[in-house]
Amino acid sequence: MDICEVIKVKRDGGKLSEEEIKWFVAASTAHEIADYQISAMLMAMYINGLDDEETAQLTKAMRDSGEKPDLSSIPGVKVDKHSTGGVGDKTTLSACPLAAACGVKVAKMSGRGLGFTGGTVDKLSAIPGYVTALSEEDFFSCVKERGISVVSQTKDIAAADKIFYALRDVTATVDNIPLISASIMSKKLALGSDAILLDVKCGEAAFMNDIEEARKLAKTMTNIGAAAGKRVTAMITAMDQPLGKAVGNALEVREAIDVLKGNGPEDITELSVALAGMMIYLAGIADAPEKGKAMAKAALEDGSGLMKLREMIEGQGGDPAVTDDPDGVMGTASFKKELVSENEGYVNYIRGTIVGMASMTAGAGRKMLDDEIDLLAGITLNKKVGDHVEVGETLCTVWSGDERKLSEALETVREAFVIDSTEPENNPLILDIVTSDMQ
Amino acid sequence: MDICEVIKVKRDGGKLSEEEIKWFVAASTAHEIADYQISAMLMAMYINGLDDEETAQLTKAMRDSGEKPDLSSIPGVKVDKHSTGGVGDKTTLSACPLAAACGVKVAKMSGRGLGFTGGTVDKLSAIPGYVTALSEEDFFSCVKERGISVVSQTKDIAAADKIFYALRDVTATVDNIPLISASIMSKKLALGSDAILLDVKCGEAAFMNDIEEARKLAKTMTNIGAAAGKRVTAMITAMDQPLGKAVGNALEVREAIDVLKGNGPEDITELSVALAGMMIYLAGIADAPEKGKAMAKAALEDGSGLMKLREMIEGQGGDPAVTDDPDGVMGTASFKKELVSENEGYVNYIRGTIVGMASMTAGAGRKMLDDEIDLLAGITLNKKVGDHVEVGETLCTVWSGDERKLSEALETVREAFVIDSTEPENNPLILDIVTSDMQ
Repeated sequence: MDICEVIKVKRDGGKLSEEEIKWFVAASTAHEIADYQISAMLMAMYINGLDDEETAQLTKAMRDSGEKPDLSSIPGVKVDKHSTGGVGDKTTLSACPLAAACGVKVAKMSGRGLGFTGGTVDKLSAIPGYVTALSEEDFFSCVKERGISVVSQTKDIAAADKIFYALRDVTATVDNIPLISASIMSKKLALGSDAILLDVKCGEAAFMNDIEEARKLAKTMTNIGAAAGKRVTAMITAMDQPLGKAVGNALEVREAIDVLKGNGPEDITELSVALAGMMIYLAGIADAPEKGKAMAKAALEDGSGLMKLREMIEGQGGDPAVTDDPDGVMGTASFKKELVSENEGYVNYIRGTIVGMASMTAGAGRKMLDDEIDLLAGITLNKKVGDHVEVGETLCTVWSGDERKLSEALETVREAFVIDSTEPENNPLILDIVTSDMQ
Repeated sequence: MDICEVIKVKRDGGKLSEEEIKWFVAASTAHEIADYQISAMLMAMYINGLDDEETAQLTKAMRDSGEKPDLSSIPGVKVDKHSTGGVGDKTTLSACPLAAACGVKVAKMSGRGLGFTGGTVDKLSAIPGYVTALSEEDFFSCVKERGISVVSQTKDIAAADKIFYALRDVTATVDNIPLISASIMSKKLALGSDAILLDVKCGEAAFMNDIEEARKLAKTMTNIGAAAGKRVTAMITAMDQPLGKAVGNALEVREAIDVLKGNGPEDITELSVALAGMMIYLAGIADAPEKGKAMAKAALEDGSGLMKLREMIEGQGGDPAVTDDPDGVMGTASFKKELVSENEGYVNYIRGTIVGMASMTAGAGRKMLDDEIDLLAGITLNKKVGDHVEVGETLCTVWSGDERKLSEALETVREAFVIDSTEPENNPLILDIVTSDMQ
């Protein structure tokens, strides 16, 4: 095929054929077409759009552009969970063990984090001894024997997505629902689970801050899943403040353990149970999401969720005692400082993007993929939205191994809190549940 | 400025500011932004368009991105002529001397040809001794003393256009009126003449084959000229068959000489007089195009146009005897073959693109910029549209220095002639004259 002829179709607002999409993705991956040709096509796709069929075909072609682990040797229904990204989101460590405790198989490959906070594998790295780079054999064994394993993604998954994403990032073609959906779903489909639960974050600290846009994204992704023959459900959840009270790697592991012990903050606990319940339902273990939720709640209350996390940590070489004494096993940052309130009133809003930035400044996140991160650094919130605060009361605590970074982070996080004399409305955490039109 | 922010404006259908356009062009020329970013922007411009103001600003920024010869030391009004490209178009060699004979100053820099036929400097290279690469000093002297000079463009004119064009060519963003207009006009404005006559070809063998599109292109270019403070007029002329009867370098020089002797084919003679007349009018030497045309006609009839061509050739080192005996001085191709008609009827159509391709096949054009060309190769038409032809009569003659190429070219050109039993309508050569809205 001739790239100019294929570009012309989308440039003129036409519909790309499956052959054209497959060829474009394959030629991009094989470096048979140039970056400037790919970026011209991505801009044409951005402006003129892709319909559901084109989006599904693009996603499948991207899925097939890299390696695809074959999970079929693992008995049971494998359910994956993906979050579009939120500050303080540690639900992989809290919801997945609850689901696994109820019989869902969780074979999860996670990337390293870039930006605000570490990714799940960074968080797990805070546990002494925990090996994130398991061989495929050991990974599969861990899932078979313990029902859950979370490892770092070492395979070349959805190779075309890496090429497209790198170009989109520098050509103003990121914030487009078909392209975002294809990027996320190509990787999730390649990873081979039977069902996928998407947690689409909506709010100031999320990529999508409009509920209608979040619904469109969720609908597009669930439709892609259905077109690829997978059971996919999306939950749209609020991100108007950080999730839970901890942001930062070891701090988030500790909070996930607290959740599983029944001592976690209300929002992250509620979300963990809801996500786990939906995973249980998607696995076919419960015949309704509400029943799945009840099972997840029981697994939290009887401690079997915590045991699952412990089993996984042990299975991957980590010190299981972390679940008994997180601070003792992982340690705490050398320095901490508190941000005190200068106003009296109700916390109306906590800007997650600023908390995330402050956490990164403290050392918890990386700007470049090979930056070292401070696993003990981060922010803990002493107040959440709706809490009343007096002048001089602590709003949050910043943790870091570096005093200079600590001071910088403290300056940054000051801007995150919006305090007002009126009590804010109590907004729901779960905004909507979206399934495919095709199911 | 941030390239993504600038791309976003056009991506979202907004209007670029003059600062954004200037920055984009400067950053592209300085290689401060990557090819894939330029191509994303060009695609956004292609799809979402540029209004007259943006187009004029883009053109001016492109004009200023390279060298700009200063013709101000040459007394008189300098008028440039540009053709959007047609097969057999040798009007620079026939119209410009007529205009110069009437007092117009013609200081013309031409590029080498690429594709179907050679460019004007290739044609002039067929004259023994003719130097196309004059120094600026010698070029200016020739115009001052003789009123006309045609040299090869050695300066780095409109540097941004080279970058943009190379990318447009491989990203399906060529056929767009604002981008075409900016490309042509940035170069013409940089070359520094006081007025510009545009010959916008319209028809099968031209870039524009729809009269409405040709009008839009003409209007856009004349508006750009007005915004840049230049007197610019566009003539839309028919290109439903090759212009004149000769296609190929020496063959076209010979035909231009024939025109200036009053022995040229009717169409090219009519167009040469019309173009020269308009140039005379644009120079302010005649106060109406019709009066300019009468002056040009007189210059043809009294032989002063031919004398001007002879003076120019002599001034640039060429053998002036070529005007007396073109074949004797330039020579003729070693081989020639005639295409005879297999049908009886009227020539309804001669596909210029096929004649051009055949001429290139015979050796007259180049595929790559450093290909050698056969200056004596080409096609001469024995029949033109409207002529009656018997079975066995010659339709055209192919000339080449290479017998194999000759045979190939003969096979190619066979497809060019459309012969039918009905006599075709006699269509006008000059379809419209377009001036700026702003004048």
